[in-house]
Amino acid sequence: MKILALDSSGMVASVALLTEEQLIGEYTINYKKTHSQTLLPMLNEVKQMTELDLAEIDAIAVAAGPGSFTGLRIGSATAKGLGLALNKPLISVPTLEGLAYQFWGSKDWICPIMDARRNQVYTGVYRFVETEEQGEVSFSMETLMPQSSMDVQELINWLNEHVEGKVVFLGDGVPVYHKQIADGLHKPYSLAPAHRNRQSAAALGMLAVEYFKQGKVETAAEHEPDYLRVSQAERERMEREGK
Amino acid sequence: MKILALDSSGMVASVALLTEEQLIGEYTINYKKTHSQTLLPMLNEVKQMTELDLAEIDAIAVAAGPGSFTGLRIGSATAKGLGLALNKPLISVPTLEGLAYQFWGSKDWICPIMDARRNQVYTGVYRFVETEEQGEVSFSMETLMPQSSMDVQELINWLNEHVEGKVVFLGDGVPVYHKQIADGLHKPYSLAPAHRNRQSAAALGMLAVEYFKQGKVETAAEHEPDYLRVSQAERERMEREGK
Repeated sequence: MKILALDSSGMVASVALLTEEQLIGEYTINYKKTHSQTLLPMLNEVKQMTELDLAEIDAIAVAAGPGSFTGLRIGSATAKGLGLALNKPLISVPTLEGLAYQFWGSKDWICPIMDARRNQVYTGVYRFVETEEQGEVSFSMETLMPQSSMDVQELINWLNEHVEGKVVFLGDGVPVYHKQIADGLHKPYSLAPAHRNRQSAAALGMLAVEYFKQGKVETAAEHEPDYLRVSQAERERMEREGK
Repeated sequence: MKILALDSSGMVASVALLTEEQLIGEYTINYKKTHSQTLLPMLNEVKQMTELDLAEIDAIAVAAGPGSFTGLRIGSATAKGLGLALNKPLISVPTLEGLAYQFWGSKDWICPIMDARRNQVYTGVYRFVETEEQGEVSFSMETLMPQSSMDVQELINWLNEHVEGKVVFLGDGVPVYHKQIADGLHKPYSLAPAHRNRQSAAALGMLAVEYFKQGKVETAAEHEPDYLRVSQAERERMEREGK
């Protein structure tokens, strides 16, 4: 099984090619260029470096939201284009789940937070559950709070009420809300280091492998990003129209 | 602080650019091309994509061995060349430590294994130690068994004697020695998934940040890879010469 994974949900653009056993290539850039300048050239670069025939791919995984509206549109448009042209299924991975999968095997509660401005965050809470068979332990990720858009204080309250053990935070919301977390959270927590604190298409792609095995795929025509809330332009239009 | 990190110690070629807070770019390829074909073009690609002026780098981190003799020579030669040309220090990161740093924050004992052929492995055993300050937990990596070259059975015996809790295995030795581990190890263990089971210059680079802060740097002239054992050609010469 070969999966091509794309994540352009935030500032980071990330492309990965992997099988269930091995990462064949990953290219990740967190730089001020726009995804329309980076994502396809990066995909093309990985394709050339690994002499990939795109027809060999079994599915295209994409970070399906929430995130930057433009970023999600570029990611989804790219995935849909590839899926249509190659006649391959898509795997929509909720952005926060892909982020949390960075912490595969962790004992902690995993809380990715993406800054959605004005004290709002996109967040979710996850944990890895163990199963052991003849000494060999496998992990699967469990959702404790599904991804949603909320006030950062509401998240801190939820964590204070529910967390057992420690929390690990990651995502672009961490530098923005670090002080509020430090002041408001009464549970021990850690902040992910630079090699684990943003989107990675390899982590997303490995979670997509699990989705794929469970048959959670869709056609390119069916796929739509999940913005989780209406865009600012839509909000303003609704306000103008008195909704 | 800006670190350029290179790892070509195994089949994987990986280049990363990062600060203490953020990964700016990472490019990793695990494909049959040789490192002489991949490492410099990959570095050049990341440099261009992130509009990097190499003079801005504070240090060059390199996986300093053990590993493939040719891979280590290409990595070290590249790092030395850059260090000399740019007049920047090098940070030699033991290969196994860089691999283990993939599991930052894990509760498990971390055991990277690289296949050194004929039942020999390059391995080491590591663990993350917590310190808490006002609820915020930091982790530092502790060496339980320094990297060395040994028989895989000897490693399994050592683990059976010492491990408390679980072990997580990663590295190219895992598919080769999985059966021996399953048969011989009496402790619970897991096998790292594809997004965490090989070299990553981002993980190596983040560990190098810690080394840099501790002043563990060297000049380009001083740097030498640590092969951990003599090459086959040298062994054969010594045998011929009756040593």
